[in-house]
Amino acid sequence: MPSVPDPSMTDLLDTLRQTVGAAHVLTEGDLTAWEQDWRRRVRGKALAVVRPGSTAEVAAVVRACAATRTAIVPQGGNTGLAVGSTPDASGTQVVLSLTRLQAVRQIDSDNLTMTVEAGCILQNVQAAAREAGLLFPLSLAAEGSCTIGGNLGTNAGGTQVLRYGNARDLCLGLEVVTAQGEVWDGLKGLRKDNTGYDLRHLLIGSEGTLGIITAATLKLFPLPAARLTAWAAVPSMEQAVALLGLAHRYLGAGLTGFEVMGQFALELVGKHMPQLRVPFLGLADAPWCVLLENSDNESEAHARERFEALLEAALEAGCVADAVVAESIAQAQQLWHVRESIPLAQAEEGLNIKHDISVPISRIPAFVAHTDALLQREIPGVRLVNFGHLGDGNLHYNVQAPAEGDPKAFLRDHEAQVNHLVYEAVAAFGGSFSAEHGVGELKADKLALYQSPAALGMMRAVKQALDPLGILNPGRVLRG
Amino acid sequence: MPSVPDPSMTDLLDTLRQTVGAAHVLTEGDLTAWEQDWRRRVRGKALAVVRPGSTAEVAAVVRACAATRTAIVPQGGNTGLAVGSTPDASGTQVVLSLTRLQAVRQIDSDNLTMTVEAGCILQNVQAAAREAGLLFPLSLAAEGSCTIGGNLGTNAGGTQVLRYGNARDLCLGLEVVTAQGEVWDGLKGLRKDNTGYDLRHLLIGSEGTLGIITAATLKLFPLPAARLTAWAAVPSMEQAVALLGLAHRYLGAGLTGFEVMGQFALELVGKHMPQLRVPFLGLADAPWCVLLENSDNESEAHARERFEALLEAALEAGCVADAVVAESIAQAQQLWHVRESIPLAQAEEGLNIKHDISVPISRIPAFVAHTDALLQREIPGVRLVNFGHLGDGNLHYNVQAPAEGDPKAFLRDHEAQVNHLVYEAVAAFGGSFSAEHGVGELKADKLALYQSPAALGMMRAVKQALDPLGILNPGRVLRG
Repeated sequence: MPSVPDPSMTDLLDTLRQTVGAAHVLTEGDLTAWEQDWRRRVRGKALAVVRPGSTAEVAAVVRACAATRTAIVPQGGNTGLAVGSTPDASGTQVVLSLTRLQAVRQIDSDNLTMTVEAGCILQNVQAAAREAGLLFPLSLAAEGSCTIGGNLGTNAGGTQVLRYGNARDLCLGLEVVTAQGEVWDGLKGLRKDNTGYDLRHLLIGSEGTLGIITAATLKLFPLPAARLTAWAAVPSMEQAVALLGLAHRYLGAGLTGFEVMGQFALELVGKHMPQLRVPFLGLADAPWCVLLENSDNESEAHARERFEALLEAALEAGCVADAVVAESIAQAQQLWHVRESIPLAQAEEGLNIKHDISVPISRIPAFVAHTDALLQREIPGVRLVNFGHLGDGNLHYNVQAPAEGDPKAFLRDHEAQVNHLVYEAVAAFGGSFSAEHGVGELKADKLALYQSPAALGMMRAVKQALDPLGILNPGRVLRG
Repeated sequence: MPSVPDPSMTDLLDTLRQTVGAAHVLTEGDLTAWEQDWRRRVRGKALAVVRPGSTAEVAAVVRACAATRTAIVPQGGNTGLAVGSTPDASGTQVVLSLTRLQAVRQIDSDNLTMTVEAGCILQNVQAAAREAGLLFPLSLAAEGSCTIGGNLGTNAGGTQVLRYGNARDLCLGLEVVTAQGEVWDGLKGLRKDNTGYDLRHLLIGSEGTLGIITAATLKLFPLPAARLTAWAAVPSMEQAVALLGLAHRYLGAGLTGFEVMGQFALELVGKHMPQLRVPFLGLADAPWCVLLENSDNESEAHARERFEALLEAALEAGCVADAVVAESIAQAQQLWHVRESIPLAQAEEGLNIKHDISVPISRIPAFVAHTDALLQREIPGVRLVNFGHLGDGNLHYNVQAPAEGDPKAFLRDHEAQVNHLVYEAVAAFGGSFSAEHGVGELKADKLALYQSPAALGMMRAVKQALDPLGILNPGRVLRG
């Protein structure tokens, strides 16, 4: 039971209750939803979960915490994959939940912008844009529960990065509460603004360690007239990269998705989701499949014509063994559903070790060949579940326990070794150990290991400058 | 003649000569090219112009300057418009010219990236990309002399921002020499990399005050199959904004240019460059003209078809009074030439006061109506030369002296007043006093005036953290 550690904490809780209302300072009952991370790897213990209802209340909460040097863990939908939004086990940290800040403040169609509060669920942001006849393109698996504040705090990626960029590329301005509890209103919806250092990009992706995002002005785009999906079996990863080059040339900015999937990953979907039709499953001499998406601003007929021209050229060039274009929206959704079912199929198959890595696209074929061979040599029987956003150079390079033997023992004995082999290979190929999931607590050690000392020095100096008391999400991104 | 101020300076010059070679430490002769700003508003005096030939030499120069607390003014092509790359008058600052770092280190076609050194002239970067069959889209008037390092240091804009973004949006990684003379190699060509704070975006646009960019990895794009240009006369700024919305819908990412020009600006071109044909010059009920560019990845026929569909819809909707599509590349170039001749025509007409401002696109019509009326009321006879990148909300809102009277007296008596009226209006409409030209020395006072105190506090903390000795381009962006 939450025994409050000392009198100053009792005072703090009183202040917080006065600030946001007693109903919004949670200290008792089941706080699992706020205290446990999304993948259920870590369970912490909060001093309190505080749910302010406005930016001014967020600022007041920060000032109260700063006065008592109490650590604050900002939290949105708590769907992060790197343990960045849950409290540690000490019972002394305040979880600052932004979910009550959920207004869509403004949609400006002529300016192609919308201003939303941090706690807006991504799906609601997308829906509000669509109701205005516009597109907010950020899209990822957790979109039904994650918040735009969390998306920006972690610089989320997803399936549309190839065309529209990461979360940071979709944001024109921020409203932020600083570590001192001041409010910075940087919500100008300007596409050009060179007036000083870009604090927006510094805050985006800082995972709540430099300030707390309370609202954002986002870029909107015209809704495409048609969105078509194709599925191609390709003879090698080299040819998948060649197909990507062709797709850029034929579709230009129409190319909004380019996902690669290894046949073993697709076999797992076929095995555990027998109701799903997986095209070209087990096709000989086609170890990879690619899902392509073409978003056309003209018409479905035009989109189809361009897709057909692309696939014809690709067949002729030998970078595609066979291909199909979805005939209907339902078919297109089925193809995406196969792609998105891989993580679940993996979980059904049993324990595995996940990596969210990127390397330059040109080096992906050599990276995969090298690392697959290395792992299979070092750990016989290991099974590789490779899939991801090839168009962004981002692979979910996952390692499944051997079919035989005890998977728990595999994890216990080999997780550190597998991570070491994979991350060393990533570094050797000039890549990143965290492409889109961020650092959080899970990979803070990796940051210290793989970032350059000069970069780490600058990051530590910036952290010290903006959060001198070290109260914002301590231990995340940078170790203390 | 350069009498060296004190013995420690003599030692420093010796060290610098040993570091980069005596031939590359300039202290005598005509140093105007390095000491005077592009618009010839300010002439400074350097202790020396130092021209290192490698990143390691840049780092050594910085360490030598840091040891003697000597201020460093990084300089590329010295084409900036905000007095950010020339020394002050003290004779104690070292101009660090990056122009000898001009290698194209790598072009990676599969990864759609190129790595270039800071001193590469923008036009050479564009040409190297084109030779590889790819596009580097950054394009601006000074491209024949400006360097990519300066473009990134100032986050340059230009004519293709609408589709491809500002310089920062075209950069995936940087190599930087810190204020301590360390080298940060952040040249990964990754589209997704969430491993700590985004130092790249912090450095870009910091105008040499936080570190010195020595190389960059840039994004490349497929070359469009065709690029078509149209010119439309529009009945009002409101209708120009409506036309922009239609163009986004009809052309999608094909819309790469959307420039607006007031009839008075075009009259000046007609008057001072009589050899140029200015379409719809003086057309009744069409106070504005718009230049549109459509870059099509398919074919010229397709580009033309889409342009015609757009202009037909625009004529029908009443947002275009008349329009023409260029029939040839030569015609297209002539249209761009008219647009780009406005600044020169303005100079021919006489003295004027320039502003590089942005406001949300939706508010541009009201901003222009309000500010035009205000200036004409306060300063009778004043003439407004409005033109710019409407697609980005960026206007070059320039004020020409009245046709009658002494223009020098006008400038002397009214420059401060005009600036005040314009910048106050910009602030009232939620805009920026520097859209793409940066702050430099010229607008450092404006930054202190118009940036929010919370933002200024964070910027000062970051500057102090990364350059505690204050040796990097002091007084620029932030006043001391």
